[in-house]
Amino acid sequence: MTRTASDLAQHLHAEVEGDPRAPISSLGSPENAGPDSLIYVESEKHRARADASRALCVLAPPGMELTGKTIIRVTSPKLAFAKAAAWFFPRKRVTASVHPTAIVSPKVRISADVVIGPHAIIEDGVSIGSGTEIGAFCFLGRGSSIGADCHLYPRVTLYEGVRLGRGVIIHSGTVVGADGFGYVFGEGRHWKFPQIGRVEIGDDVEIGANTTVDRGSLDATRIGNGVKIDNLVQVAHNVQIGEYSIIAAQTGISGSSVIGSGVVIGGQVGIADHCAIEDGVIVGAQAGIPTGKKIRSGQTVWGTPARPLERFKEQYAWLGRLPEIGRRLRKME
Amino acid sequence: MTRTASDLAQHLHAEVEGDPRAPISSLGSPENAGPDSLIYVESEKHRARADASRALCVLAPPGMELTGKTIIRVTSPKLAFAKAAAWFFPRKRVTASVHPTAIVSPKVRISADVVIGPHAIIEDGVSIGSGTEIGAFCFLGRGSSIGADCHLYPRVTLYEGVRLGRGVIIHSGTVVGADGFGYVFGEGRHWKFPQIGRVEIGDDVEIGANTTVDRGSLDATRIGNGVKIDNLVQVAHNVQIGEYSIIAAQTGISGSSVIGSGVVIGGQVGIADHCAIEDGVIVGAQAGIPTGKKIRSGQTVWGTPARPLERFKEQYAWLGRLPEIGRRLRKME
Amino acid sequence: MTRTASDLAQHLHAEVEGDPRAPISSLGSPENAGPDSLIYVESEKHRARADASRALCVLAPPGMELTGKTIIRVTSPKLAFAKAAAWFFPRKRVTASVHPTAIVSPKVRISADVVIGPHAIIEDGVSIGSGTEIGAFCFLGRGSSIGADCHLYPRVTLYEGVRLGRGVIIHSGTVVGADGFGYVFGEGRHWKFPQIGRVEIGDDVEIGANTTVDRGSLDATRIGNGVKIDNLVQVAHNVQIGEYSIIAAQTGISGSSVIGSGVVIGGQVGIADHCAIEDGVIVGAQAGIPTGKKIRSGQTVWGTPARPLERFKEQYAWLGRLPEIGRRLRKME
Repeated sequence: MTRTASDLAQHLHAEVEGDPRAPISSLGSPENAGPDSLIYVESEKHRARADASRALCVLAPPGMELTGKTIIRVTSPKLAFAKAAAWFFPRKRVTASVHPTAIVSPKVRISADVVIGPHAIIEDGVSIGSGTEIGAFCFLGRGSSIGADCHLYPRVTLYEGVRLGRGVIIHSGTVVGADGFGYVFGEGRHWKFPQIGRVEIGDDVEIGANTTVDRGSLDATRIGNGVKIDNLVQVAHNVQIGEYSIIAAQTGISGSSVIGSGVVIGGQVGIADHCAIEDGVIVGAQAGIPTGKKIRSGQTVWGTPARPLERFKEQYAWLGRLPEIGRRLRKME
Repeated sequence: MTRTASDLAQHLHAEVEGDPRAPISSLGSPENAGPDSLIYVESEKHRARADASRALCVLAPPGMELTGKTIIRVTSPKLAFAKAAAWFFPRKRVTASVHPTAIVSPKVRISADVVIGPHAIIEDGVSIGSGTEIGAFCFLGRGSSIGADCHLYPRVTLYEGVRLGRGVIIHSGTVVGADGFGYVFGEGRHWKFPQIGRVEIGDDVEIGANTTVDRGSLDATRIGNGVKIDNLVQVAHNVQIGEYSIIAAQTGISGSSVIGSGVVIGGQVGIADHCAIEDGVIVGAQAGIPTGKKIRSGQTVWGTPARPLERFKEQYAWLGRLPEIGRRLRKME
Repeated sequence: MTRTASDLAQHLHAEVEGDPRAPISSLGSPENAGPDSLIYVESEKHRARADASRALCVLAPPGMELTGKTIIRVTSPKLAFAKAAAWFFPRKRVTASVHPTAIVSPKVRISADVVIGPHAIIEDGVSIGSGTEIGAFCFLGRGSSIGADCHLYPRVTLYEGVRLGRGVIIHSGTVVGADGFGYVFGEGRHWKFPQIGRVEIGDDVEIGANTTVDRGSLDATRIGNGVKIDNLVQVAHNVQIGEYSIIAAQTGISGSSVIGSGVVIGGQVGIADHCAIEDGVIVGAQAGIPTGKKIRSGQTVWGTPARPLERFKEQYAWLGRLPEIGRRLRKME
């Protein structure tokens, strides 16, 4: 599908400088772009890459000049690029179909326009909303509920009773609703604490590949609207994650911790049980937050145990000065 | 199924204070309980939650008073609650069946009363004990052996020759018996070190979702009776894990390390190769134990490299005092 | 299959000391070997284990004497053992077959001598080279391309357009080509940055179980020839990994980072985005490399933030001396 610089500018409510009829047929990076690819340049630092690109059409910020390009002038080129992508590549509407090898219980409520891939299994009591695509090998356990316009890539497992909102995307290998990890030791063995709660996932959530989200023990594990979770993340029983929070790969959130809204959590972060991470907190990669700790709204923390970033940096700088301190102390002695 | 406070008290060898005929039909948290739900309260700190609950029946410790409740008096309410769960929810005995889409080799020894789910694959030489349930999409490689009363959730992979004891639970996405990670570099390439050992898993082991347990290189990887392993854990070749040890999510145990009995390992811990973690050790979350290190029985360690918890805390406290030390030193100079 | 010490020595271009007709029918560890098992001993430290073994045939280094053994004398016994394994256990050539339950698009280019396991799904436009084995439940997305002599264990997912070279091994549960994790926040929500790039994996790569390799956002994620990746590793969008690098379990490499050739990365390492890890670098387990950091060729680093190993050790030693420094300072005051 080819559109013009003018079409895109109109969609973005932006101005074109150059040829409004310049065609755009794809999105690219400056290096791999063809003449018809749209590229973006966010800052002066990357201007030369854009200048050297074969792309004719560039999303560029106010004031940036480029040689021989048609510029679509936007205040935030990267955001405009993402919006252009959503416009160029709307979610493919695959023709509604249930693959003959799928095993679908007769006791389900499934909208007429869904896609169910080969070898998928849909158990009793499942409901699936309009326009949703269930990939090959997906397993939807008894009574689970999937909203409209969701996309489950191949090989997603939902245990019994998991609820997904609208527009949820889950990547391959992810497991939602497995038992939480809770035992009570007594009489020489571990007794399993009941893991009979639910999982409730809001609208427009995206979850990466091979991630695990456990069901609540007695209450629910909840993931709010607009949350984005990367690959290989662990979300334990009873965790609550507020709207629009972002969680990078391999992070683990232990039982009953509460994450606020708009929180940004780096990769490989460990959050112990019963923590409270308030709205807007930023947690640096590999940080570790001990049991029951509260991180106040708006803070940026790093390290294990996690502390305010400035303090971490200061302590780290002092660590580097220790040999010198030792020398000075010896000299005085 | 509804039982009474008296039934439960009898099962727990406990006394009822209040109405012995109070009905119990489910287990709940204080907040989501209905009148017929059983709840528990472990300590004074949570008494108000129990008091405010709609639940009529409460497992409570000696001496704790609650208003208008029927109390089942136990020394360890949380343990009693877990035992009540085991009594309320005995493992469902699904009717024995082999789903017609399962692919089962004729050369197997499978007890008559097992359940084999849709699209499961059972290769030659597999044996499955009485009462075991094999979920959808499970793959049981050639010659693997599963004891009685096991439950493999959908989409578990056992490579060739893996042995599970009785009462083993494995959650979705877990892979047992893949090749260990071992190479020898020579002549400009990595030669694969043979990964031809076995995996032996004892009785009453539970393994979470998307965990990996590699086969031994020449000998066996072994997991003892009663061990509980969380999600996304890595257990490398030749690792030995003693009875009743507990391993939280995203922990990794490298090749040939030996974990004793009753060891508790927090989340995201890294244990390098050839370590010895003796009986009863507690390893704090995110700790890192370097190659070949021995942690003596009964110690609690934290940090990377891991050290006794008290020492870690002391060092961490000193780290915070460094700016002050710097000022004092400067003053003296 | 039984061969003799002489056969093996010939294959390894080595000398036999003892009985050249000593039979070898398997490979073992000193402890579990039978008389016909081949064992190896690398250093004096393990000589007693070899001496006490029932094995008659031993790969041993120059100068090491062993009692009553037939010695195949090699400079690097462990390497010779790995080479012996490759000679003893050449990749099984399973008889070419497509399981009747596999779902194979008619629009594919598949060599005549491949194996496609039960319930595998091969979408349109896939190509598969000679001698390759595709395990049960594998999903090969539209247009993906698999070279000759590859082995995909059961339950591997390749998203659309993934390219594998020759001799690639991928273990169960691994997902290649899922969307990278990239969003741009604006107008109150996260917009998905396009994730429309490719994944290109070279020859002789081995990837462990439940690992995730994301597709490039606009360009490609690339893994070079001979790279070995362990279980539960995260490789983000646009990452480049040079030839023969080794990455241990649970390591995460964030977007656009470039790993050189011959790099060795320990377990649970976190590499933030846009880092450059030059050729031959060694990164110790659990190290954390901050955004944009360059690690120069040949360095060994450890800690978070990662620093040269010697510096880490020095700082760590100073940390232990802090209480003493405090006392000395107080005394002077």
